[in-house]
Amino acid sequence: MQLGMIGLGRMGANLVRRVMRAGHDCVVYDRNVDAVHDLAAEGALGADSVGDLKAKLAAPRAVWVMVPAGSVTDSVIEELAATLDAGDIVIDGGNSYYRDDIHHAEQLRERGIHLLDCGTSGGVWGLDRGYSLMVGGDDEAFATVEPIFAALAPGVQAAERTPGRDGDPSPAEHGYLHCGPTGAGHFVKMVHNGIEYGMMAAIAEGLNILHRANIGATREASGDAETAPMTDPEFYRYDLDLPAIAEVWRRGSVIGSWLVDLTAAALVESPDLDAFAGRVSDSGEGRWTAIAAIEEGVPAPVITAALGSRFASRQLDEFADKALSAMRKQFGGHDEKPAAGL
Amino acid sequence: MQLGMIGLGRMGANLVRRVMRAGHDCVVYDRNVDAVHDLAAEGALGADSVGDLKAKLAAPRAVWVMVPAGSVTDSVIEELAATLDAGDIVIDGGNSYYRDDIHHAEQLRERGIHLLDCGTSGGVWGLDRGYSLMVGGDDEAFATVEPIFAALAPGVQAAERTPGRDGDPSPAEHGYLHCGPTGAGHFVKMVHNGIEYGMMAAIAEGLNILHRANIGATREASGDAETAPMTDPEFYRYDLDLPAIAEVWRRGSVIGSWLVDLTAAALVESPDLDAFAGRVSDSGEGRWTAIAAIEEGVPAPVITAALGSRFASRQLDEFADKALSAMRKQFGGHDEKPAAGL
Amino acid sequence: MQLGMIGLGRMGANLVRRVMRAGHDCVVYDRNVDAVHDLAAEGALGADSVGDLKAKLAAPRAVWVMVPAGSVTDSVIEELAATLDAGDIVIDGGNSYYRDDIHHAEQLRERGIHLLDCGTSGGVWGLDRGYSLMVGGDDEAFATVEPIFAALAPGVQAAERTPGRDGDPSPAEHGYLHCGPTGAGHFVKMVHNGIEYGMMAAIAEGLNILHRANIGATREASGDAETAPMTDPEFYRYDLDLPAIAEVWRRGSVIGSWLVDLTAAALVESPDLDAFAGRVSDSGEGRWTAIAAIEEGVPAPVITAALGSRFASRQLDEFADKALSAMRKQFGGHDEKPAAGL
Amino acid sequence: MQLGMIGLGRMGANLVRRVMRAGHDCVVYDRNVDAVHDLAAEGALGADSVGDLKAKLAAPRAVWVMVPAGSVTDSVIEELAATLDAGDIVIDGGNSYYRDDIHHAEQLRERGIHLLDCGTSGGVWGLDRGYSLMVGGDDEAFATVEPIFAALAPGVQAAERTPGRDGDPSPAEHGYLHCGPTGAGHFVKMVHNGIEYGMMAAIAEGLNILHRANIGATREASGDAETAPMTDPEFYRYDLDLPAIAEVWRRGSVIGSWLVDLTAAALVESPDLDAFAGRVSDSGEGRWTAIAAIEEGVPAPVITAALGSRFASRQLDEFADKALSAMRKQFGGHDEKPAAGL
Repeated sequence: MQLGMIGLGRMGANLVRRVMRAGHDCVVYDRNVDAVHDLAAEGALGADSVGDLKAKLAAPRAVWVMVPAGSVTDSVIEELAATLDAGDIVIDGGNSYYRDDIHHAEQLRERGIHLLDCGTSGGVWGLDRGYSLMVGGDDEAFATVEPIFAALAPGVQAAERTPGRDGDPSPAEHGYLHCGPTGAGHFVKMVHNGIEYGMMAAIAEGLNILHRANIGATREASGDAETAPMTDPEFYRYDLDLPAIAEVWRRGSVIGSWLVDLTAAALVESPDLDAFAGRVSDSGEGRWTAIAAIEEGVPAPVITAALGSRFASRQLDEFADKALSAMRKQFGGHDEKPAAGL
Repeated sequence: MQLGMIGLGRMGANLVRRVMRAGHDCVVYDRNVDAVHDLAAEGALGADSVGDLKAKLAAPRAVWVMVPAGSVTDSVIEELAATLDAGDIVIDGGNSYYRDDIHHAEQLRERGIHLLDCGTSGGVWGLDRGYSLMVGGDDEAFATVEPIFAALAPGVQAAERTPGRDGDPSPAEHGYLHCGPTGAGHFVKMVHNGIEYGMMAAIAEGLNILHRANIGATREASGDAETAPMTDPEFYRYDLDLPAIAEVWRRGSVIGSWLVDLTAAALVESPDLDAFAGRVSDSGEGRWTAIAAIEEGVPAPVITAALGSRFASRQLDEFADKALSAMRKQFGGHDEKPAAGL
Repeated sequence: MQLGMIGLGRMGANLVRRVMRAGHDCVVYDRNVDAVHDLAAEGALGADSVGDLKAKLAAPRAVWVMVPAGSVTDSVIEELAATLDAGDIVIDGGNSYYRDDIHHAEQLRERGIHLLDCGTSGGVWGLDRGYSLMVGGDDEAFATVEPIFAALAPGVQAAERTPGRDGDPSPAEHGYLHCGPTGAGHFVKMVHNGIEYGMMAAIAEGLNILHRANIGATREASGDAETAPMTDPEFYRYDLDLPAIAEVWRRGSVIGSWLVDLTAAALVESPDLDAFAGRVSDSGEGRWTAIAAIEEGVPAPVITAALGSRFASRQLDEFADKALSAMRKQFGGHDEKPAAGL
Repeated sequence: MQLGMIGLGRMGANLVRRVMRAGHDCVVYDRNVDAVHDLAAEGALGADSVGDLKAKLAAPRAVWVMVPAGSVTDSVIEELAATLDAGDIVIDGGNSYYRDDIHHAEQLRERGIHLLDCGTSGGVWGLDRGYSLMVGGDDEAFATVEPIFAALAPGVQAAERTPGRDGDPSPAEHGYLHCGPTGAGHFVKMVHNGIEYGMMAAIAEGLNILHRANIGATREASGDAETAPMTDPEFYRYDLDLPAIAEVWRRGSVIGSWLVDLTAAALVESPDLDAFAGRVSDSGEGRWTAIAAIEEGVPAPVITAALGSRFASRQLDEFADKALSAMRKQFGGHDEKPAAGL
């Protein structure tokens, strides 16, 4: 079938490539003309405007939008609402807030256009590994676009079959799922990313504990009235090989995972992670997951702590820390210690 | 080579089987005579005492201990210290606290016996998948036992090679690692389990958020002076298929992992998890990891929160909760609401 | 001056009483006729409708609304918008979400009516101790109602002067503050309650640690493969007198606070807190504070953890806990332990 | 009665002064001769060695040790064990780990000397406000030293009586408490400090949320693929006066407390807290409280999070943050953003 793609950044371009590999035709558009040319050179049909993209697609059209969430997506959806015809389908494959999907779907529905929201996981590796796709929207639109989802998904062979499942593999076993009505796709993807934050933080914290496991050999065991001495320095004398440890966890361990695979790869590249300063961005889904937990009244201490750690990595805890130092100065006359004393 | 095994429970028996599959000979002992008979029927040589086990092994002996951590391990190590000869090697493959290894190694060293501490991950699946092995102790003893570790480990083919690694695969790429001196193996395994706690909790919290995603459709949106009303019930109207969602995450997603595989399997068996009451045990390593973080001065909010959630799952937060209710009653005259009102 | 009061529950009635004690006149209305009669008997002028209340007040009127946040407040504001005259002032003294204030202020502004949002802390004790008042809205309306705020506030003598402050005491030193434009009062009150959640939880957790301090004397120190044994039971043999401990913290300690005072009182009434089941409600502000932290990108691990603990106290973590048990069963074959075994 | 004091730092010197104010005699010793001279000038009897201090006290002697916890306390206790006579009493008033008390008490008991462990809260303000004292040890020793505890404690008048208490005020109502056998005093003080960490963090987090409440007015609302845009910038446009807010919370609010009083004082001195860098020390008790919670199996998410925040304030989360950035780079090709972009 034919797919239109708007947004040819890292993710969008690879989606096009994977769709074309499966034999489908793609019409592509981006404000960046070079990005269009590059994909045209690989076999896509380039368009120089949204209108041109529409003209090059046969009705009913399926147009995938892969642009930054928020105001950019808003304006593309708006343009599509004004451009496409009734019966056409827009797929928002970016990291939109699922609440925005509900709004966008209403906008489009007024023109008879369908919206599918599609949470897309897989990152830069998805071109070869395939993407995990979580889709929301109406049944009819989903059925129309399903061949594209099937092309993008990793396929059944990407994992051993789950014990207890039998018969023909379900779409979920191919790696894509129609999760429910509008917003359900991005809702499930949001929670996926919340879990991702927690898993990443668990690994990162564990590595940090290993990284400091030699502190008993290197730090003086004495403290003073304001700094806790080490209780048992003799138990912290391990100079550990983190790249090897991440590697050994890749096979047979309970924590075996793609994130551990990637951690092992990163540690081969940079055993001390010196290439990084430790400022960790957050792109919305972690926040939204934490907010969803609060609004549902569900405890999510791990996901929420992982999110807070990212904020702290960007020094957004600084004023709070100053307040703690100020209180300590007030009640105990404690001065802050110089950085070197830590 | 020959391996002695003491402790033929779920883990110990499977270790023996996997070692025998690789062509090694096993002499096995357990206080439970039936367990010995069962493995003898599978090709092991049964022993009826620790002394008998010693007698049936050629020096230098390698004796793997696979019994519960704590006092049981203590007494087995003590018996081995009194029974084995200088030059023999004891492998503690259980979940011992790495600090106990240091004590045990000293005990054994007085008799010229070596201790290897071996953190063993893989659970009931290890027989077929292989075990991830994290070993501490001296080089000589490690080299002697290495064929056994190689037999137990999953092997290189169990995962794609990490980008950037080349040449002959390292032991870590086979799935076993000599982490450092005595205790290093269980230290690394301890942190592994700490990470496991965090990962498991991340998944569990995410599932709970999905599980409650329909609360806006089912719960009255109104609150009262003591209960928060839902701010946006219209955004919580998703009746989600959790078994399918766990399945779709298995392929291509960033959180793809063995734990997600297992979660998918559990949800096939019991989509509502009704087989469980939700009392989650903890077997020591999570506690020790959290304590190590504190003693090193390293923040580990995710791992620590995961541990605390397990305590709370066993209602160990009850007195604290009563104290909160008591304070609310004092300052606001708030009575607790009946359970049905939640 | 004259004050109208709508909502004569626990809080509203006491506000009226304290205002009257200061020599002001109150016109009171509640759908509950008995509540109106009771206060009329104490000197207030009763009204039998919002219109009647308006009629009994001289313009420009000041009408305090003290009803549950959410839909009840919404409908009262709506009725007031339809009833009052331009130049009148509505004070929302309840626990409204500050975002609702912004909406309500717009509604009222269309009719020329002012809104003041007033966060009111003090609980059932406020009648005698006075209330801490955090007010948002325009300067003119604040200035008009200031005598009422001054009457409700505890007054300068309620605390020793803060070192470094001099000259005439500021309004904040009397116990009320004009925090900023519409919503600022409830925003500050919201954060106040977030802090309250954290403080309460800190006390409650501490009491729980004291409560269990004798576990080494009472619990068997042994564990098994699924339950951590106590590492050092000899260090947990303290049978502590919690009512006395809470009492000793009331004088001279760093944690001296009204919440500790109330805790001490609760423990005198019920040393084991047996009067409570431990289901802790949350009334919105804690949630909103946690959400504000997330939206601002500020780490708030303590406040957020306190909120999560309340959710867990109502067993809203149950599905997550079941998921953990299910995973443990999958990878380790671990069955859940019976409740008695905990 | 007579009291010996070893350690004339900030705390020790003020303890001597308060004891002398109550009419008791003090013999004082410190390695710092000037500190001895200063107190001698205020009426204490100076000693130039531990032996001299002993000689100047009549048996049975009471010697208060007020030196840094850990190795310094260890050596002073050792010297006292070698110097004092059977029947004498040592009071460890510092911040010792309660487990060390158990060891010290055994050391001293061999010589017939008693140990009282005394947790001392009150900081630099204790001279005038009095100290909250939590004491462990045997009844006989406690009874002997009780007049000193009574002199140091704030006294009954320092707080209104707790409702429900009647008859003669208990020692706890004076502000000192015999909590139980050896270690009980420092155990209770340890938990007190754990609560203090939690309370302080709650206040600090709340202030940080207020501090950032204007972010919607100052930051561009747009994000990009790696940074979450603000969802609702229009709700974060409050430029708040933190010194005034801390002040208004001091009277009548639920969070009224000494820590809020001190926060208000700090904000008068430095409204932006510019005097501080935000490196927050921890002096042991917070760590020990968190460890006690873990060993008891009690969830303490708030206290533990507060402790972790202090670690993070000293950048001890840096390696973990680098690991997160490394993972993000691996799966998404995300580069870290420059500091200015935060």
